Amino acid sequence: MALPQAQIPPRGERLYEGKAKVVYATADPGLVRIYFKDDATAFDGRKRGTIGEKGRLNARIAAHLFRVVEAGGVPTHLVAVAGEQELLARRVAIIPLEVVVRNVVAGSLARRLGLAPGQVLEEPVLELYYKRDDLGDPLINRAHVRLLGIATAEELDRIEALALAVNRILRPYLAERDLILVDFKLEFGRSGDDILLADEISPDTCRLWDRSTGEPLDKDRFRHDLGGVADAYAEVWRRLEARG
Amino acid sequence: MALPQAQIPPRGERLYEGKAKVVYATADPGLVRIYFKDDATAFDGRKRGTIGEKGRLNARIAAHLFRVVEAGGVPTHLVAVAGEQELLARRVAIIPLEVVVRNVVAGSLARRLGLAPGQVLEEPVLELYYKRDDLGDPLINRAHVRLLGIATAEELDRIEALALAVNRILRPYLAERDLILVDFKLEFGRSGDDILLADEISPDTCRLWDRSTGEPLDKDRFRHDLGGVADAYAEVWRRLEARG
Ligand SMILES: Nc1ncnc2c1ncn2[C@@H]1O[C@H](COP(=O)(O)OP(=O)(O)O)[C@@H](O)[C@H]1O
Ligand SMILES: Nc1ncnc2c1ncn2[C@@H]1O[C@H](COP(=O)(O)OP(=O)(O)O)[C@@H](O)[C@H]1O
Ligand SMILES: [Mg+2]
Ligand SMILES: [Mg+2]
Repeated sequence: MALPQAQIPPRGERLYEGKAKVVYATADPGLVRIYFKDDATAFDGRKRGTIGEKGRLNARIAAHLFRVVEAGGVPTHLVAVAGEQELLARRVAIIPLEVVVRNVVAGSLARRLGLAPGQVLEEPVLELYYKRDDLGDPLINRAHVRLLGIATAEELDRIEALALAVNRILRPYLAERDLILVDFKLEFGRSGDDILLADEISPDTCRLWDRSTGEPLDKDRFRHDLGGVADAYAEVWRRLEARG
Repeated sequence: MALPQAQIPPRGERLYEGKAKVVYATADPGLVRIYFKDDATAFDGRKRGTIGEKGRLNARIAAHLFRVVEAGGVPTHLVAVAGEQELLARRVAIIPLEVVVRNVVAGSLARRLGLAPGQVLEEPVLELYYKRDDLGDPLINRAHVRLLGIATAEELDRIEALALAVNRILRPYLAERDLILVDFKLEFGRSGDDILLADEISPDTCRLWDRSTGEPLDKDRFRHDLGGVADAYAEVWRRLEARG
């Protein structure tokens, strides 16, 4: 949905400030502006910092990847780039699920199942987490989703199918740019009768490893004090921009 | 499968000693004797004790409930009662899953989802845990089961269907004996091409609440130092025996 810059509505009321973004209303009740902060948090907010340029880079990377998956048939909330580090998006009612898709063993999957990180999975593994900071975003299953009334079985089928479609689109797309898509977290929202991919796709929400060195180019650099965080995010953006 | 007492093979080699039971081989490679200990453990073995008569009571309760579910069409490993606190069972290759079915919110479900204990669920909720003491028996989903190679999708369908069948049989059966079946944990095993319900069904592996007082008559009395543990187990056995 391309929108001429002149038609992008200005910021209204601040609706919500999260750990990484601020959501603003606009005069159009169906549209929000999402400002990407330079703030970084990890481990349920117990680790905090700022990453220079992160907001600008993540907004660009997210807009870019939303367009890629949109072109592949996945409906997203993205309407337009609204500024240096801000997107215009359709306002959705966020479904409180973190939908994780994994191609390679890493992070909590390695710990949960006692597996060695780096093992490539034969089939992508999809996980549902209940988006509840106060509970530590616990892993849940489909029966829990039904019990909590988070989504109907049909909605959940749709969400899982869309998440796997994002993986089918982005994994080869990123591989061509020498990035291994190890895993990523998605959020979906309701807008009328539609379910849209919302929130962001960025090095904050994906694990991306350099194809030749295996080095992480994502938030794990911040989590594990590996240094070069801003450079890694910039490198991801450079690779996307360079090849379009 | 009734077996005349004279034909019950004696104990052979000790195959495995767990937290609650000891499994012995017999001269028949397809049969094991399972001895129920009086030992009680909780919280991943961090709490330990003994409960007088527990072994005898659990062996009796398990044999009784296996026969009830068997009559309802669920194949189990039970062959015969082999002694005071010992069962004769078909030897199976245990599938390393703890299959939990819940009718009422309690325990880890309340903590995981932030729900009040005691809430009756509209639909039974089934959960899969990876039976791995060293990992703390983590909750997993069906994709994890596939990735770990624990069971095929068809086997998992069968296991889930059998677990829900056990619930459909035991919930009303126990209700008639003034026991609310809050939740329970099952283990399944492979014996040739069959999947059999194995391990035990007892107050160690079920939450059973008295229908009139709401008092737990199960291992929660031990976990939470409520006292009267042996009496509670005896009361469960009395109610089963009294009404057959
Ligand atoms: N299109 C949208 N409409 C409304 N809310 C959204 C949209 N996209 C994302 N959000 C929500 O905006 C919030 C801000 O993002 P973030 O800072 O990442 O928050 P959090 O700390 O909760 O993860 C999140 O709760 C996210 O779900
Ligand atoms: N029919 C069977 N054949 C072989 N092993 C069994 C059978 N039934 C139960 N088992 C296994 O016997 C072991 C002993 O039980 P238990 O003391 O409860 O062990 P744990 O401490 O591992 O829970 C368990 O690992 C259980 O899976
Ligand atoms: Mg977020
Ligand atoms: Mg056991």
